[in-house]
Amino acid sequence: MATLTVPASVPSPAEDSEQLRKAFEGWGTNEALIISILAHRNAAQRTSIRKTYEQTYGEDLLKSLDKELSNDFERAVLLWTMDPAERDAFLANEATKRLTSSNWVVIEIACTRSSYDLFLVKQAYHARFKKSPEEDVAYHTSGDIRKLLVPLVSSFRYEGTEVNMMLAKSEAKILHEKVSEKAYTDDDLIRILTTRSKAQLNATLNHYNNEFGNAINKDLKTDPKDEYLSLLRATIKCLTCPEKYFEKVLRLAINKQGTDEGALTRVVTTRAEIDMQRIKEEYYRRNSVPLDHAIAGDTSGDYEKMLLALVGHGNA
Amino acid sequence: MATLTVPASVPSPAEDSEQLRKAFEGWGTNEALIISILAHRNAAQRTSIRKTYEQTYGEDLLKSLDKELSNDFERAVLLWTMDPAERDAFLANEATKRLTSSNWVVIEIACTRSSYDLFLVKQAYHARFKKSPEEDVAYHTSGDIRKLLVPLVSSFRYEGTEVNMMLAKSEAKILHEKVSEKAYTDDDLIRILTTRSKAQLNATLNHYNNEFGNAINKDLKTDPKDEYLSLLRATIKCLTCPEKYFEKVLRLAINKQGTDEGALTRVVTTRAEIDMQRIKEEYYRRNSVPLDHAIAGDTSGDYEKMLLALVGHGNA
Repeated sequence: MATLTVPASVPSPAEDSEQLRKAFEGWGTNEALIISILAHRNAAQRTSIRKTYEQTYGEDLLKSLDKELSNDFERAVLLWTMDPAERDAFLANEATKRLTSSNWVVIEIACTRSSYDLFLVKQAYHARFKKSPEEDVAYHTSGDIRKLLVPLVSSFRYEGTEVNMMLAKSEAKILHEKVSEKAYTDDDLIRILTTRSKAQLNATLNHYNNEFGNAINKDLKTDPKDEYLSLLRATIKCLTCPEKYFEKVLRLAINKQGTDEGALTRVVTTRAEIDMQRIKEEYYRRNSVPLDHAIAGDTSGDYEKMLLALVGHGNA
Repeated sequence: MATLTVPASVPSPAEDSEQLRKAFEGWGTNEALIISILAHRNAAQRTSIRKTYEQTYGEDLLKSLDKELSNDFERAVLLWTMDPAERDAFLANEATKRLTSSNWVVIEIACTRSSYDLFLVKQAYHARFKKSPEEDVAYHTSGDIRKLLVPLVSSFRYEGTEVNMMLAKSEAKILHEKVSEKAYTDDDLIRILTTRSKAQLNATLNHYNNEFGNAINKDLKTDPKDEYLSLLRATIKCLTCPEKYFEKVLRLAINKQGTDEGALTRVVTTRAEIDMQRIKEEYYRRNSVPLDHAIAGDTSGDYEKMLLALVGHGNA
């Protein structure tokens, strides 16, 4: 469930564009006005506004925002305003660049989006960067991490709910064997995690838990400092319980000395329209503090206001 | 260029459906009538006929054809009548089954179709088989062959024509190093072949040829009996000069003691609407016999008539 709130009666894209243009004009920028419009429009509405704005003022809205805003607030508004597939393509590309590389972000995008949404990300990536995300991920990684990440990004998983219980049992056994042998980069282990549908994988991992006494992620915690192992755990978490994965990203971002604004902005802007309500519930359950209070305590100014608007602060 | 010929004035889908129904009725089946209709309609027209036929007679046209026809002729008509994405999904699935498995067919579909067409194949595969092709390919292969095939099937390659010449040079060098070391299953070699756009790969392989004196496929012919190596050569051929690849498949199918009807039917039905004209040119250049003569010499009856109609026998 989303936390985005859209007013019952939404102004036309032309009216919204005009108001945004007004917010940019004159001496100061009217940040409150920008938030009051953009943070309360869904993806389709934002796309219409961007189209109308460009037709009316001859400039991409993103460019105008880029000129007027700065720092964390700017990044939050820009990411939020982008079309979701374009935004993911942008984040994935950033995650494969040398200075901003992040295997976490790659896994997050590859494993928490639906197959079709991931396909749209690939199309957006082609259009914007003139190459494919699998190409960049493969080029910027190596060894075991490449072996895991490239198929995760490439797969177009089946999305149906059908489950083959025989297969779940036999593959749970394979996974348990490989994990017991510490063969964490085994071909079959990677094949199962990177190609099976989420429903099938869930059945397999439930069977693993029932049959062998531990959740697989517990068995994969033999060396907490091993990057490959933590990426493997993140993969499984993203595929089977994304809200718990995102709760943890938010928790670490907020609890960190100095706040990790990059992660905070990414999770809020990419999930506000999808499952932020579930993530908030998980956050409260795990931290005994409501997410909006935690965000308010750790951020300030327009950036804080933007994030709070997106996570539905003040809603019933 | 296609070899399919469609009459200047095409009957309506209702008229075609009625004629087909007539061809099925009575004592014998009117094969000539079936060929005269289906072998001269393009994919969109065949889809319309199938839709209208089902609405009118309450049965999938494929099912009626299956009841009326038999053997090689049946397979040719059924494959041809299918929607191209559905047909490729069917062929790919067959190619991952134990008794009919064929790594060649997997490579052919993965490497000669456009990225978007391959995506449509994946969607058709999900719809029909309730799983993904990458899942089945990964499950039914192992070792080096899996390492090559799974990313080939999974990749959604960039399709633009932009070429990065610096990258082409550096990657040609990597390929040459790995091939010289006989490191044919090297991660980087596979990464380059499975993720780069066809345009980029072409530039890389041209540079390889210019700089190191041989086409890469010549350097990969160290052991003609090694299956992995021949799949690697097929991959490169499918990606860079599909018409030569298909010419060879046809040549081997026709020259074989007893004719390989499976391969012949597959190539004719999948390419008639795409590039069969180019394949015919290649065939004549390489064999000094026109393809339609060779097909006529090796096949007979309605099967022969169907194939000849699809390869444009008797056209100017």
